[in-house]
Amino acid sequence: MMTRSFKIMMVIATAVLSISTVGGHEYNENNRMECNMCDKLPMQSDGIVRLSKISVTPDYINEYMKYAVEVGTISLEKEPGVLTMYAVADKDNPCHITILETYASQEAYQQHIASQHFQKYKQGTLHMVDSLVLDDVTPLNPNNKITNTIVR
Amino acid sequence: MMTRSFKIMMVIATAVLSISTVGGHEYNENNRMECNMCDKLPMQSDGIVRLSKISVTPDYINEYMKYAVEVGTISLEKEPGVLTMYAVADKDNPCHITILETYASQEAYQQHIASQHFQKYKQGTLHMVDSLVLDDVTPLNPNNKITNTIVR
Repeated sequence: MMTRSFKIMMVIATAVLSISTVGGHEYNENNRMECNMCDKLPMQSDGIVRLSKISVTPDYINEYMKYAVEVGTISLEKEPGVLTMYAVADKDNPCHITILETYASQEAYQQHIASQHFQKYKQGTLHMVDSLVLDDVTPLNPNNKITNTIVR
Repeated sequence: MMTRSFKIMMVIATAVLSISTVGGHEYNENNRMECNMCDKLPMQSDGIVRLSKISVTPDYINEYMKYAVEVGTISLEKEPGVLTMYAVADKDNPCHITILETYASQEAYQQHIASQHFQKYKQGTLHMVDSLVLDDVTPLNPNNKITNTIVR
């Protein structure tokens, strides 16, 4: 027979476990909880993994980077279907940008490109971009998972 | 004054919280704990973020992929300094492989390339690789963090 105290203990333990694993709430390296990330959708069969390769006109690289950081931050924090948006610049040529983009589904991608923040980036950087290649890719190992968060 | 029951409850709650947030132990989408990932080192100032671009001889692509999946899995699970090893193949040309590799430090990278599993991959695939380009990169946004795990 369970005692009342034991039942209370189980309720507390379950509650603590739930709080610490709820989607979108992670602990950063300083053990501070990030609460800006929205919960994410699971990857669907029509999801997209993409390497976007952008060559930026050198004169505009600093301005471009501000736009890219802003759209990446808002997309990751606010869009449940944007699973990764991880942008890097070649060390040898910082005008060559690659973005690892993952969308949970085609619908999530359509919502992303229709969003106000993406349109601000797209229209704001059109004149800065020399070339853009969208390489859709397939992960080699379906058990290899990437999680992408903004840590503030 | 704290009662004995309250103290026991606090001990249980603390223990459950510790178990659920300890480094390297995450919950996968089926809410099953993965215990194969080692704890990871923090990124150091001399850490490496790299896009390795490999062109594989078409005749060997299936064999190459087995080697690549194996070395990625072991490196992520066993090496504290291997923070990402996320390999993708172009959909348009599956012989073009890109691997997002992140090492916590130069020392972690040296340990990686000296490891038995990396040497097995390297020596086993030498004759399969047409070209290899190691593009070291800089993330655009230091607050944008990637976590890479093997989910079993």
